[in-house]
Formats: sequence, structure tokens, C-alpha cells
Amino acid sequence: MKLYSYFRSSASFRVRIALNLKNLSYDYLSVHLLRSGGEQLQPEYRKLNPDALVPTLVDGDATLQQSLAIIEYLEETHPALPVLPRNPVDRAYVRAIALQIACEIHPLNNLRILKYLKHELDVSEEAKNAWYHHWIEQGFDTLETRLANDSRTGQFAFGDTPTLADICIVPQVFNAQRFNVDTQRYPTIQRIYDHAMQLDAFARAAPGQQPDAE
Amino acid sequence: MKLYSYFRSSASFRVRIALNLKNLSYDYLSVHLLRSGGEQLQPEYRKLNPDALVPTLVDGDATLQQSLAIIEYLEETHPALPVLPRNPVDRAYVRAIALQIACEIHPLNNLRILKYLKHELDVSEEAKNAWYHHWIEQGFDTLETRLANDSRTGQFAFGDTPTLADICIVPQVFNAQRFNVDTQRYPTIQRIYDHAMQLDAFARAAPGQQPDAE
Repeated sequence: MKLYSYFRSSASFRVRIALNLKNLSYDYLSVHLLRSGGEQLQPEYRKLNPDALVPTLVDGDATLQQSLAIIEYLEETHPALPVLPRNPVDRAYVRAIALQIACEIHPLNNLRILKYLKHELDVSEEAKNAWYHHWIEQGFDTLETRLANDSRTGQFAFGDTPTLADICIVPQVFNAQRFNVDTQRYPTIQRIYDHAMQLDAFARAAPGQQPDAE
Repeated sequence: MKLYSYFRSSASFRVRIALNLKNLSYDYLSVHLLRSGGEQLQPEYRKLNPDALVPTLVDGDATLQQSLAIIEYLEETHPALPVLPRNPVDRAYVRAIALQIACEIHPLNNLRILKYLKHELDVSEEAKNAWYHHWIEQGFDTLETRLANDSRTGQFAFGDTPTLADICIVPQVFNAQRFNVDTQRYPTIQRIYDHAMQLDAFARAAPGQQPDAE
């Protein structure tokens, strides 16, 4: 398998964790989002990923986009070492946590949005940071409430083995810390992050460990 | 089953379509996002949905959030009349289209974002509309390219029966039209929308058909 990835991309980070958790090896192909006017915008890459986003996973003849779709694909094609529970209600719970991050937090803070705020809306650096913090904190507030009160929370978001929920939580915490959000305010989220990062599958997937890390 | 829904919510619209496609009946409970300072923010509702978002599906003892997680749950618990193809590569393709809408287009244009632009960033009505149009058009441009060029596109996004992709496309088109985006610029998307809305499952799920429609 080949993974088109950018070291700092949270969505790429998610897929790297899932591949590692399933003991799947892959070739790492860097797509630098800032160099050469954005390598993701080059016509050759857009043939693989019409949305000009990372990651893209190539598995044989199949070219797959969108991190959560890729991880569901890996779960279906490599069901050993599952990242989703068995019971449909529990699967929906884990997916809801993943989607809360992927749909409600992450999209508001990625590169193209911050660029638009700065260049099109002429928003100050301070207001841009406030925007960033607002959506992370609003999302983490409700995620913390959920995790702190649900009996399914264990060492990870669902019990004591990592699932799709943790695969989304860890990159979002990493990203938040990079932008100086005080994640200690969210003790359950922070605890899950710390625990996950002790596992090789998470640690090896971290941005700083990638071949294109700066 | 009970569905907590708001007639205009795209995410609620998605779940209504899925329930209809699977011939599942449900009780409709309205959560008015604008009345009483936002009924979704009331403590009683937040017990069901900590993120204060619609929809929430209650099925027996299970309380489920996030439209795509709910639809995957319905697919697993009611596999007849599937909304995902069988083959893992095709499932990933359909999920990628759904997630492109759910993660890249929809989050940027929902109520809480438009409110923040207006009240916190003091953005003009004109700039707010430009923001709205920008993200819809960028997303629809790439979606149109994908659908127009992929041999899997049929009367629907994947072949000739509706899938999770169409379940996400139709509410997004509806929403775009409400904000005066010229969706005729996207002939494949428009054609899929028109075809879908001829089906009872889609038509009955439309905002104007809901008990809380205004």
C-alpha cells in the first residue's frame, strides 16, 4: 500500500495510526501542503485525489480518499486487530466521537480556512487565533463531558483498547497543543492522549516521526 | 424509534432519507434551533446529545448522535435495502463522497459558523454570503468533477440505486439552493438531485414536509 501523506495533517495522522494498529506496512509518499504553491494542488496529485486533500491511500488498483472512509476500508479488508467494537450500538458510539472531531472541530481549523480568514476576510492574527481556540474548546468541552460521564470510557475512549475514536482524538490533541490550546483543561481527553502516545502504533504515527517532518 | 430533528437541518434530512429508504417508521420530535434561544441548548436535550446538535436517534435503550454514525447503525441493524454497496472499495468510494460533504462542505456553513462570522468577526452580510458560496462552490466543483468522470456514476452517485452518497448530496443541494447558489452549474449533481427527489423516500424527507416546517 502507498500512503500519500503530509506529516502535520491530522487526517493523514489518523490513517497512519490505523495502519500501525493493524500492523500493515506501507510506502510513505509526501505531499507538501505548503511547498511549490501546495503539492496537493498539482494536476498529477488531483488525479488521485480530486479534492486536493491528504491523505490518499493506494491499495492495488484502488485509490481511496477521506481518512474515515479509508479506515473503514482497512477495518473491512483487515478485520484482525479491529478499531471498531462489535456491537452496533457501541460502533455507533465510537463513530459518533470520531465524527464529532472530523465534522465539528477539525474542518474549522484546517489550513484552507485559516488562509481564507486571513486573506479574504482580513481577520487579524489575534482574531484568527481566537477563532481557532473557540472551535477546539467548544468541541473539547462537549467531548470531555461525554467521556467523563460515560461508563464506556476506559484507558481509551471506549474501553481499554484503541478504537476509531482514539484515532481521531490523538491528532486533534496534537494539533490543539501546536496552537497553544491548554489541553490540561480536559483531563479525560489528556489522559487518553497520554496513554495512547505510549503505544508504538500512535508514537510512530506522530508528525515528528515522518520522513517529511521539519 | 424516535428522531429528534429540525426540519431545515441537513444532518437531520440525511437520517430522514435513510429511515425512509429502509422503510423504517419513527416518531418525529422537533428541536427548534432558533426558538427559545435554541432548543438544542436546553439541558434536557443535551442529556441526549452532549454536542447540542441535531439529529439524535433513540432506538430502545440506545441514544445515537451524528448523522453518519446513525446511518451506519441503521445499515448494520437493518441490512435489507442497503445504502452502501457490498464491495469494500465501492463502500469506501461512497463513504468518501458522503464525508467530503459532511466534513469539507457542510461544517463551514451551518448556523453556528454563520453566527460567529456575524457576531464575533463583524463580517458584513455580503462577505458572509461570499463565505457561504465559496465553500459550497469549491466543494461542488470537485464533487462534480469526480461524478462526471467516474464510471461508477449512474442515475445516482453510485449506480442506479440510492446510497449514502446521495443521502448526503440531496440535503446539501437543497441547502445550497436556499442560499441562492446556482446549482445548475453542476449538471451531474443537479441531475442526481432531481432524480432522487422523484423518489418518495427523498421527497417525504424534505424540510417542507416535516411537522415543524415553517
